[in-house]
Order: sequence, then structure tokens, then C-alpha cells
Amino acid sequence: MPVDFLAELQRRDEQVVRYFLDPRFRERFRPAHLQRAVYAYLERPGKRLRPAVLLFSCGAVGGDEQAAIPAAAGIEVFHTWTIVHDDVIDHDERRRGGPTVHEQGRQLAQDELGMGPTQSADYGNDLAILAGDVQQGWSVCLFAELAERGVPPDVVLSLITRMESHVINELIRGELLDVQFAGIPLEALAPEAVLEMLWLKTGILYEFAATAGAMIGLATPDPEHPLVQSIGRFAADCGTAFQLQDDVLGLIGDEQTLGKPVGSDIREGKGTLIVCHALQQANDSQRAFLKRVLGRRDANDDDVAEATRLLRDLGGVEYTNNLAREYIVRAGPCLEGLEPSAAKELLLAWADFMVEREF
Amino acid sequence: MPVDFLAELQRRDEQVVRYFLDPRFRERFRPAHLQRAVYAYLERPGKRLRPAVLLFSCGAVGGDEQAAIPAAAGIEVFHTWTIVHDDVIDHDERRRGGPTVHEQGRQLAQDELGMGPTQSADYGNDLAILAGDVQQGWSVCLFAELAERGVPPDVVLSLITRMESHVINELIRGELLDVQFAGIPLEALAPEAVLEMLWLKTGILYEFAATAGAMIGLATPDPEHPLVQSIGRFAADCGTAFQLQDDVLGLIGDEQTLGKPVGSDIREGKGTLIVCHALQQANDSQRAFLKRVLGRRDANDDDVAEATRLLRDLGGVEYTNNLAREYIVRAGPCLEGLEPSAAKELLLAWADFMVEREF
Repeated sequence: MPVDFLAELQRRDEQVVRYFLDPRFRERFRPAHLQRAVYAYLERPGKRLRPAVLLFSCGAVGGDEQAAIPAAAGIEVFHTWTIVHDDVIDHDERRRGGPTVHEQGRQLAQDELGMGPTQSADYGNDLAILAGDVQQGWSVCLFAELAERGVPPDVVLSLITRMESHVINELIRGELLDVQFAGIPLEALAPEAVLEMLWLKTGILYEFAATAGAMIGLATPDPEHPLVQSIGRFAADCGTAFQLQDDVLGLIGDEQTLGKPVGSDIREGKGTLIVCHALQQANDSQRAFLKRVLGRRDANDDDVAEATRLLRDLGGVEYTNNLAREYIVRAGPCLEGLEPSAAKELLLAWADFMVEREF
Repeated sequence: MPVDFLAELQRRDEQVVRYFLDPRFRERFRPAHLQRAVYAYLERPGKRLRPAVLLFSCGAVGGDEQAAIPAAAGIEVFHTWTIVHDDVIDHDERRRGGPTVHEQGRQLAQDELGMGPTQSADYGNDLAILAGDVQQGWSVCLFAELAERGVPPDVVLSLITRMESHVINELIRGELLDVQFAGIPLEALAPEAVLEMLWLKTGILYEFAATAGAMIGLATPDPEHPLVQSIGRFAADCGTAFQLQDDVLGLIGDEQTLGKPVGSDIREGKGTLIVCHALQQANDSQRAFLKRVLGRRDANDDDVAEATRLLRDLGGVEYTNNLAREYIVRAGPCLEGLEPSAAKELLLAWADFMVEREF
């Protein structure tokens, strides 16, 4: 990992965060509880890789990264609304080292409005639904601001249309499949279905980040432009690798760097490729044990530790790691059509980071 | 009510419905449950006044209504996502003569996925949240299609930005205030607060419908253009009158034409201006009776009928009706700057319809 990748990432991050935290936006969101909900995740530390990929991609096709800053902010806000709604749907309580938006809302209802348990939980969910809704609107407006930086209006409209049709529809399809899969037994989950969901829930948005950056850099409204297509494919593969690695870290990473409790993927019974693979390799007693522990919210720490050990020993972690690396290897050649540049190097460094990272 | 108003309304309705029901959109929404959720309200009969106001306003400033059709479809889809999420938040079970989207989803989960009661209810809510999300995206895309009908791209971007910042933020603020008000006793609700909420939850979107139509008709990206401003004010006042009348019909209308059970506003304890006014006028025993019945989901039919009679006899209905008429009277002069035209006449006829209607 070249040291300057993290420094360059940091530099983009500061520009993007400064853009979306500008006070001219904040006053739009009222009342106070809604404002807190809208900013909760945006103000917490995050990797913010999607904006970086958008900016690198703009630079890699010879464009001016500064013109693309509103879109970089827009894609982070777009990603944020999807996880706010996702967390409501998954009943998750922690995100990025703090309470989820609906959980924070539940606490506000209890502490400030004096509501009882059921009413507070409803209020928290309502707040999170509405916060995600206005964030979606905000993300569109951020893209619209590209026009103020000289991006041609037809390019801006093309980007907004792509994000609000293809990207959102595929993302939401992935989210709903995820909900439907939660209702079927883990051992009935095919690896192909898991990969399809990874693509929908993660690959699509990384693809769009790169596509958007390249379209801005090339000033083209055409998402079928060959350079746009290949840089999009590159980012989609790296994004999928990222998510595979995320599942590995969710299993063997530590709480501090993850921002959520160790073992939560096991207790939630998350249908990862690791689990699919391990269940295929397990003998009868191992399979019975895993089926008993996975998805059991009140599983004790010993059982969770044993399940973690089993998933690793049965090769699920190694298998998933290897697949992530394959995606990265496959992605590299997509960038062959690009002239050498610092931005291109950063894209390649990002690809490596996707599978090397430990946070 | 001139007979041609309803005929002209019908004509616009057909064009707008044909536009958003075009098969090229339908295939975007998958899986099947999501598609059913997305189309549920759009396929049921509705008044669809917002698209009509948008088209009349375009015509009234001398524009070509045909160029504005995508926006008219867009505003109906935008309105639709807000009610889909609204129904989740309000736990409503009926809308436009059928089950609400989340209730329909709950039934699908039970019948087709074999889920138990808690899981089915969650699935229904998840489906409705996600359906509303993609509908918001779709509404933006419909506006973006204006560019294909010759509307200048800067006008299109200005409309999208207005809808996705000012309009959505005010609407959602209204929705959250509504949720917060539900937690305080009805007698503590000030009439000013009720009117503020009517403005946020209804006036804003009617204002935007007229504003958008006028901006398209004038080909201006400037929402501060004097004609745009005055036609927007006109529609906002009429929209607020519409909502006041809606509360009256919700109390004394009949089930067939309303599409929801008679007395539901009483059982839900809806904080209408009618209720505010009646509680102010009531003597101690009347007030005690109303406080006992309003908001009581299991109130019997006799108590609901008695509460309805009281609300009317205490003058709440008459007061609200008069206020609605005042809004309409105030609205009329806003159109004085417009040349005489058939579209202008239709706007004025619409204003009358807002308070004369019985459905």
C-alpha cells in the first residue's frame, strides 16, 4: 500500500466533507430532531470511498476534480440515505461507532418527548424514514449543483437520471432480495444468489461513482462511452471485492475498527459467502452446530467464538478472500485504455486497498 | 361548477396516467412484490388534481401543455411516494378504496411467503419504505424527461432542485410535526399549528405544481418570476382550502366516495381545525365526552355518531367550511395578471371545485 494513497484519500475526504457540511444546507432540515437524524452518519468518521472513486475517475480521464466535488458529496449523501433506511429494515442498533438513526430517534422520543417504549420505537423509525427521504432529495440537489461548476446541463441531467432510475432500482432490488432471503434457511442460500446481492447492494453504486466521475471528466452525457464503461466495470469489480472483504472483517475484525459488535453478523445470521461455503464443507455435526448458532440473537459468546472458528477452519474465510482477490485481478485490465496519470495510479491503489484493508 | 371543468380534468388525467403507466417504466421495478407496491396507488382511481393544476398553470401563462406532461406525471408520482411513506408512519390500513401499500405487502408475506404475523408486518413496512424510495427516484426522472420535449435543461434542473430541496423539506417537516403533535393532547393543539401543518403537508405541493407549470410555460428557470409567484400563491391557497374541505368530508362524507371508513378521523383522533374549534366552544361535559371518544380506536358506532354530531353542532364544520371559502376568495385576485384564456378559467373553476366538491 503506497503511503500516498491514504494521504490522497484524506485530502479528497476533507474537500467532500467540507462541501456537504456547509451551513447553507443545514438550516434546510427542520425540526431539530430531523436535522440531527440527517447529519448523524455524515458527521461520524467514515471511509467515504465512493466520493474518492468518483473524483479519481474524473481525474483519470483527464477531467478537473474540482468540477466534480458536488457529485462526490452527492454520492456520499445518496449512500447515506440508503443505509439509514437499511438500518430501519434490518433493525440494526449500531452504525459507525454510534447508535443508528432510528435508535437515536427512539432515545430522543424517550428522553425529550417522554414517550413510552412502543411509541418511542415508532417515532425513531418514522424519523429515520423521513430523514432518508430528505437525504435522497438532497443528494439529487448536490448533483444539480454541478452545473454551477461548468458541467454541461445535459451531462448533469443524464447523471441524475441514471442515479434515480438504474442505480436506485437495482440497489432497492438488492435490499428487497436481502429481506426475502432472511426468510429462508441459510443452507438453502446459493452462492450465486449471495454474489448477485453483493453486486446489487454494493457493486452498482461503486460502478455509478466511477461512471459519474468519468462522464463529468469527459463532459459526456453518454453512459455508453467506452472509457466510461470500462472504468465503471473496474469500480464495480473492486466494489464487490470490498463487500466480500467486509464480510471477512465482519467475522474476524475487531470491534474498535469495525464500529459494531464482534459476532453481530453471526447473531444476525447474515447470509454471507463465508457461511454458504462453510455449510457446504461442514460435516453433519458441524452443520447442526452452525445452524443452531447462526441467526440466534441471544447466542452466548462461547458459541459465537466457536462458530467463528468453524467458519474459518472450514475454509469460508480463505475462499471469500481468494474470490475478492480474483475480482481485483480481473478489474486491473479495465483501466488499460487510460493514459498514465496520478489519478489512474490512485484507482489502482484503491483496488489493492479494497482487499488489503483491515478496517 | 361548469360541466366542462370535470371533462377537462378527465382529459388531463387520461394523458398523465397514460404517461406514467407506460410499460417502459414498469419493467424497471423488480422483484414482483416491489412492482405491485410501486403501482398500487397509481392504478387506483384518484382525483389527480396536482397534475391538472400543473398543466392548467402551464397553459394559463401561454405555454404548451403537451411539453409539461412529464412533469405532471412526475408530480403525481412524487405525491404518491409521500403518501406511501405517510401510511406506514400513520399505520393506516386503507387508501383509495384498497389496502395501503404496507398492508398489501403484509398480506403478500403471509399468503405467498408463509411468514408469521410479526415478520409479515415487518415485510409489509419494508416493502412500502423501499417502494416509496424508488418512486421518489422515478418522479425525478419524469421531470428530467421534460428536456426531451424541448424544455430548456436549466429550467429542468431548476424544477428538480426546487422539488428535491424546498418542497420535500417542507413536506417532511410537516409530516414530522404531525407525528410529534400526535403525542400531545388534542385540547393543547393551537389552530395556528394545525393551519401550519396543512400548509406544509398540502399547500406546498399545490404551490409547486402551479409554479412548475408556469416555469415550463414561460421557459424560465426563475421561481421568483412575478407570474410564477402569483400563480403559486393562488394554488397554495386553493390547496389549503382543499385540505380543510377534506377534513370536513372526512367527518360528514360517506364511505363509498371517501374510500376509507366513516369515523376513522374520529377514531384516529386526527387533530383537525374542526376538532380545535369544537373543543374551544364545548361546555365541560361535551369536552369530557369528546376527549373520551376522539383517538379511541375501539370507540363504538354510537359514540362516533354522537361525536360527529357534537363537532358539527359546536360549529366546527361551519367554521372550517367558511375558512376554506375565505382562502378561495383570497386566491382569486392572484390570477389578475394573467391574460384571459381557457386555462385561466379552468384554474378558477378548480378553485371553486376545491370547496364545492363532495368527494
